[in-house]
Amino acid sequence: MSSDWLIPETRVLAVASHVVYGYVGNTMATFVMQSLGCEVAALNTVHFSNHTGYKQFKGTRATAQEINDLYQGLNQSHLTDFDVMLSGYAPSAAAVEAVGSIALDLRRKAENKPGSFFWVLDPVMGDQGRLYVNDDVVPAYKQAIRQADLILPNQFEAEVLSGIKISSLSTLAKAITVIHNTYNVPHIIITSVHLSELSQSTPTSYSNALTIIGSTTRSDGTPRLFRIDVPALDCYFSGTGDMFAALTVARLREAVVAAGAGLQTTKSWVSPDDVKATDLPLAQAAVKVLASMHSVLEKTMEARNAELRVLAAQDENTQGLSEEERLKQQHLRESKAAEVRLVRNVQFLRHPTVDFQAQEWKEEDIPAQL
Amino acid sequence: MSSDWLIPETRVLAVASHVVYGYVGNTMATFVMQSLGCEVAALNTVHFSNHTGYKQFKGTRATAQEINDLYQGLNQSHLTDFDVMLSGYAPSAAAVEAVGSIALDLRRKAENKPGSFFWVLDPVMGDQGRLYVNDDVVPAYKQAIRQADLILPNQFEAEVLSGIKISSLSTLAKAITVIHNTYNVPHIIITSVHLSELSQSTPTSYSNALTIIGSTTRSDGTPRLFRIDVPALDCYFSGTGDMFAALTVARLREAVVAAGAGLQTTKSWVSPDDVKATDLPLAQAAVKVLASMHSVLEKTMEARNAELRVLAAQDENTQGLSEEERLKQQHLRESKAAEVRLVRNVQFLRHPTVDFQAQEWKEEDIPAQL
Repeated sequence: MSSDWLIPETRVLAVASHVVYGYVGNTMATFVMQSLGCEVAALNTVHFSNHTGYKQFKGTRATAQEINDLYQGLNQSHLTDFDVMLSGYAPSAAAVEAVGSIALDLRRKAENKPGSFFWVLDPVMGDQGRLYVNDDVVPAYKQAIRQADLILPNQFEAEVLSGIKISSLSTLAKAITVIHNTYNVPHIIITSVHLSELSQSTPTSYSNALTIIGSTTRSDGTPRLFRIDVPALDCYFSGTGDMFAALTVARLREAVVAAGAGLQTTKSWVSPDDVKATDLPLAQAAVKVLASMHSVLEKTMEARNAELRVLAAQDENTQGLSEEERLKQQHLRESKAAEVRLVRNVQFLRHPTVDFQAQEWKEEDIPAQL
Repeated sequence: MSSDWLIPETRVLAVASHVVYGYVGNTMATFVMQSLGCEVAALNTVHFSNHTGYKQFKGTRATAQEINDLYQGLNQSHLTDFDVMLSGYAPSAAAVEAVGSIALDLRRKAENKPGSFFWVLDPVMGDQGRLYVNDDVVPAYKQAIRQADLILPNQFEAEVLSGIKISSLSTLAKAITVIHNTYNVPHIIITSVHLSELSQSTPTSYSNALTIIGSTTRSDGTPRLFRIDVPALDCYFSGTGDMFAALTVARLREAVVAAGAGLQTTKSWVSPDDVKATDLPLAQAAVKVLASMHSVLEKTMEARNAELRVLAAQDENTQGLSEEERLKQQHLRESKAAEVRLVRNVQFLRHPTVDFQAQEWKEEDIPAQL
């Protein structure tokens, strides 16, 4: 039976938000990792009715004290045998610090067994040039990520952490190098990169491409950069960052164990210097992650379009509604229709059917003038 | 692809407890229902580090106001298109009332479409002769279950609801009849029945049997009783009631749709009077539910025994511990080892491999002297 499971047994502590309806944060990550065979302990940092993209929601945020208490509850009953911690949204600077303390404690417990604990951190701070957390969350993350093994910032968050405005391939490479070295973070994936330069070099078959850039550091601190281009879908989905992170936990663990040569008992799972970028477990994992996501989101878009067509055909009574109210109702319908169709597309999580490629991206590939 | 899913599309609102580590309440029910293809919206009534069987835990309970708020959050964004509600542990009488109000509101929304909303209620009050909730929770449940379509009490909870001490098959039949009629609950399953009479009539191949008794009412208020005997495993597992309830949601919906003849658009999915007890969707569902549970728990017991053997072989330093502390550590180890092995046994949830039988249980089968 166990041979049916590609992923080695993995116990994950997942610290992120919970929503009653739909899939973001732990609500997304828990099912994704479970469907790949991981044991998931979900510690929820918020308990909201729905994701904030609806522009209205109700619910509660956990305080740093509540997060600490839950972890102390695990500790006192010896329920801390986690191989991986995955952390996402935390609702305050103090909550980020609490999550950091948990990681530090788990790392201390594992210090005699290199590679036995690995922290994947999604430094949720903002997007597209705008912070959506309080300013004091930024220094809390800058402190916390020093304990992380892999971080998953988007382009804006990578700018915030590196202090470098990413406007070109060369500044992107520089930002990654700075993050590797300043914070001693061995693995980085930048989960969505928007650069006009990039679009000139993506496969011509993609009318619109989405690029992720990753790197595992070498022992001298230089980055091993790879890029993966995938066709972008013409729709905004919430929770895709959480899906990416959860799939990465499972696929990276799979790739590290498959790599053999003692990699899984090496501190932070950093491959020897002679492993080239495209052969990195991080690159191999990311290729499968993006393949799963592409199929699930493609199915989601089909279902969303069908749902919106049905709603449009219904003779909805919008008379008497103000323009503002009509737009609000439309936004709510569109948000609901775009919820990721996760449960019935589980086979694409387990067995990705499309084939993307990682490309090595060497310093000399970066045009000199940039 | 959808042909791969036996269960028709089902949206479930699950209202129960959440634990970070292990599987009880919503943490159990969510994955079980998702793995059978249901969309699950989990509204968590508590957020604990672990289940209370460890005898120590940390975390928070949701107030009735918080439960109401979350539901209002769903309501205001039109996220209430649920086919089924499954409710379990609620931490106070007010919380039970809040859950009842949610069910009432969902029922009102569905009143023009019979069968389009179905409430499965597990009246979590106590076990083995002892309440483990406040006394005021009992009248709250007695009120709430009038809205329920299916309730899943254990033997003690059936006694509390019916006011009848269950000491024999005839008093058991009477208690079920009283619950059907007093509260107008059309479907009942008593999830664990312990009667010396029963053990005399269970299959001799089972050294130790566990019996469940179910009934769907006829239009004249009489019960249609069935029983299913399964071999009991020599171990206590937490969360089995929640596993039973979650599997029942999916399997009952499957059986009701398979029954055809408009049953799924009949109020409360009550089969016509000429359907005999063993042909009831409730009985057909329960057989599959118990088959899945038996395999998952058998695998769990094997894994638990292996884990305890490894721990016993380790030269654990218990010197210097008081007897009380030593027993506490042993209890914690045993509680952890007995956590249900859910994720990697998902195939038994989806495709049960053992075959149990429901038996009709007619009034005349009950010995007259009882």
